[in-house]
Amino acid sequence: MAKELKDLTKRSEDYSKWYNELVVKADLAEQSAVRGCMVIKPYGYAIWEKMQHTLDEMFKATGVQNAYFPLLIPKSFLCREAEHVEGFAKECAVVTHYRLKNDPEGNGVIVDPEARLEEELIVRPTSETIIWGTYKNWIHSYRDLPLLINQWANVMRWEMRTRMFLRTSEFLWQEGHCAHATAEENEARAVQMINLYAEFAEKYMAMPVVKGVKSENERFAGALNTYTIEAMMQDGKALQAGTSHNLGQNFAKAFDVTFINKDNKPEYVWANSWGVSTRLMGALIMTHSDDNGLVLPPHLAPIQVVIVPIYKNADQLRQISCVVEPLMAELKGLGVSVKYDDADNRRPGFKFADYELKGVPVRLAIGARDLETGTVELMRRDTLEKETLPLEGIAGHIVRELEDIQQSLYQKALDRRERNTYVVDSYEEFKQRLDEGAFVLAHWDGTTETEERVKAETKATIRCFPLDGDMTPGTCIFTGRPSACRVLFARNY
Amino acid sequence: MAKELKDLTKRSEDYSKWYNELVVKADLAEQSAVRGCMVIKPYGYAIWEKMQHTLDEMFKATGVQNAYFPLLIPKSFLCREAEHVEGFAKECAVVTHYRLKNDPEGNGVIVDPEARLEEELIVRPTSETIIWGTYKNWIHSYRDLPLLINQWANVMRWEMRTRMFLRTSEFLWQEGHCAHATAEENEARAVQMINLYAEFAEKYMAMPVVKGVKSENERFAGALNTYTIEAMMQDGKALQAGTSHNLGQNFAKAFDVTFINKDNKPEYVWANSWGVSTRLMGALIMTHSDDNGLVLPPHLAPIQVVIVPIYKNADQLRQISCVVEPLMAELKGLGVSVKYDDADNRRPGFKFADYELKGVPVRLAIGARDLETGTVELMRRDTLEKETLPLEGIAGHIVRELEDIQQSLYQKALDRRERNTYVVDSYEEFKQRLDEGAFVLAHWDGTTETEERVKAETKATIRCFPLDGDMTPGTCIFTGRPSACRVLFARNY
Repeated sequence: MAKELKDLTKRSEDYSKWYNELVVKADLAEQSAVRGCMVIKPYGYAIWEKMQHTLDEMFKATGVQNAYFPLLIPKSFLCREAEHVEGFAKECAVVTHYRLKNDPEGNGVIVDPEARLEEELIVRPTSETIIWGTYKNWIHSYRDLPLLINQWANVMRWEMRTRMFLRTSEFLWQEGHCAHATAEENEARAVQMINLYAEFAEKYMAMPVVKGVKSENERFAGALNTYTIEAMMQDGKALQAGTSHNLGQNFAKAFDVTFINKDNKPEYVWANSWGVSTRLMGALIMTHSDDNGLVLPPHLAPIQVVIVPIYKNADQLRQISCVVEPLMAELKGLGVSVKYDDADNRRPGFKFADYELKGVPVRLAIGARDLETGTVELMRRDTLEKETLPLEGIAGHIVRELEDIQQSLYQKALDRRERNTYVVDSYEEFKQRLDEGAFVLAHWDGTTETEERVKAETKATIRCFPLDGDMTPGTCIFTGRPSACRVLFARNY
Repeated sequence: MAKELKDLTKRSEDYSKWYNELVVKADLAEQSAVRGCMVIKPYGYAIWEKMQHTLDEMFKATGVQNAYFPLLIPKSFLCREAEHVEGFAKECAVVTHYRLKNDPEGNGVIVDPEARLEEELIVRPTSETIIWGTYKNWIHSYRDLPLLINQWANVMRWEMRTRMFLRTSEFLWQEGHCAHATAEENEARAVQMINLYAEFAEKYMAMPVVKGVKSENERFAGALNTYTIEAMMQDGKALQAGTSHNLGQNFAKAFDVTFINKDNKPEYVWANSWGVSTRLMGALIMTHSDDNGLVLPPHLAPIQVVIVPIYKNADQLRQISCVVEPLMAELKGLGVSVKYDDADNRRPGFKFADYELKGVPVRLAIGARDLETGTVELMRRDTLEKETLPLEGIAGHIVRELEDIQQSLYQKALDRRERNTYVVDSYEEFKQRLDEGAFVLAHWDGTTETEERVKAETKATIRCFPLDGDMTPGTCIFTGRPSACRVLFARNY
């Protein structure tokens, strides 16, 4: 492991290669035998589970309930909303048959041509269509609203170029699908959920985000309005970490979902949908990790504290274990997840490197000398700083240290983003700042044409209209035409 | 709702119809627009979530970690283990294309014939093949073993006749896949997991099960040995509620997964797999529910206690709420999930019927009279018995009552099974008992031929060799040939 660790490419050499290697070396995920699909390994999955549990509780606290809808969507459903199918048709995995059989010519097993489906089924790329097809039977009166549903599921979008967690053909996510009686309530829920995602990103992932609205060009296929949270990765590129869509009455109209309002009149239902995915794992990695491996914020670390004994013989180990066991109990009692690694087939140096690679926030090392002096060595993963501390009161110290790491990681990421965000008024500076790896706030004339020209020339896209952005009008830096406000540009994942 | 409830078919009239209606009326699930696939509604999903959380904790306590493997399996992988593909080929959903396009002839959207996959992908019916294809890279030495992995996932088996929860084309499940260094350890894990399932069934589902071993004919495709838990439904039919398979070295050989043992020699890895699915929801329903609707064991009830206020005006409601609020807080503090239904658009009678239908274990009703007398009316869902009790100390009483309901439900189900299980020595009695709806312990000559003849004549299958069964040899009741021991026969879901 120590050797493997040394092999980790440095971020400054090749950020992209560093990322790909880290995902594998830290045991988060690996490529599978299926093109574009990954295997999420136990350690990576444990982080995703922590994200899931936290988000699930946050959703439920707002009245959302979980449910489950079919994996396969009839082709005709997907086609009911014109923009929606336009947006997803090019990346659909299509089920056409329901049986295999032995090849009569003896070439193993083949698809049975007689088992062709009358209507092809699409592996869901997202579930608006199947869900709104279902809501038609669930919603009749204003008393059935709001309907606040979430689903944890796998989805499939056939991507040509894939990268683990960031862009895979299959990914895990949650998709919320709410139905409301009024446009106002609907908009409020869409905003509530993007705020919830921002809170999760900041408090748990220690990842600052810019909340904003997507340009028409970057909107979800079928939405009136898409809210987004955008985070800055260490290389200055943006990562869209979560979205919440105001779908207006588009899906209600496509699936004829009406309700009787309080005035006893039929009306189309208002819809929003919102989702985050295993992409958050990529965001987490590229926000905090370093050339030694993963750095995890304590609120999402499967192991928050690892204790490594340093011993020469079984007797020493026994003495150390006598000190460690009550400490473990105390830490667990304080809600800290702690691992005691007394495996005898790996040396301490190997273990140190391994837990650094895995991003465990706090490492304690206890040796025979420490027993004499009543001390322990504590290392913080974020700073790699070591400190020798009295064993007495160490549990309380650790709890404070974990909280401090969580805050420091957030502050460090925020400082980096602020340092690398520029208000720019010329196209020259715009290009220069992007090359440096920055977020750029610039005026834009509001046309898709200009947006696409800029993208072609600079690879930068409009990430969003920041919600707390500068609303002073100005002049588009590309065309010189009037601009209503500054928008956030960046290169992106 | 009161009317709908009255419409519920009685179990004695048509058990199957009762089940189908109950699933829908209790808001557990409904048919989707996709053939054979169901929508799991929020109330049904909440019960499944409780099952998931409990099982997940139980698995983890035995050292199992969660991970995630791809949904789609290359056809060639599925074909690597001969018996396995034989078992699943006839029910596979096959992905053949990865893109849709606009029909050049203007007929909407069609499958793009140019986007045909080189190799077809199968929507996983189970994941042994993709997982053992992956384990090849994870396992090298005995130090990598045991590898104890579980996955929560959706799977697809194209069923011709489907019933909600019991047999659906897509279902949710968990599948554990463990790898071991020795045959003994492997067998021990397979047994450990069937024991874990039995404990879950009995302690949480209040459902007694017979633990046993499947006959060769009923084994999992590719297994050496399949352990099962079999439960008796109210109509006397058996339901296979969970299985654990000793796969021997079959999958290791098919995917060439070897490890270097302690003697430094290469050996094939030993495998087991085990799973339970949303089928457990069907088992839960058919173990406890009655003609008034669902009956839920408290350990799995999303709402354990519902409190319904009976009031004539806002002032009375306010006074009742003043009493209810501290009670709610006290119950929550005791870990009881409680709902206060003060909705003013439904009358108490309607609410009573609704919560009966939904199987809420304990209902409290509090009216103006109760406020004067310091009492409350408590109804147990399992017995429908009402009692007027002092409000003082009611929280503690409820906790004991919930535990008593849990135990009573189990005892009632166990009594029913024992009453309806017969040791039988003649084919005449065998047929008669089966017609009455019973489990039958009978001698069998051990041949698949006899097993299939019995099935054709009586619709009964061999559910298992019970682990604690009578091992006295005897004479097969069909052929008169020697029999090693009695096996359990029943008709089944």
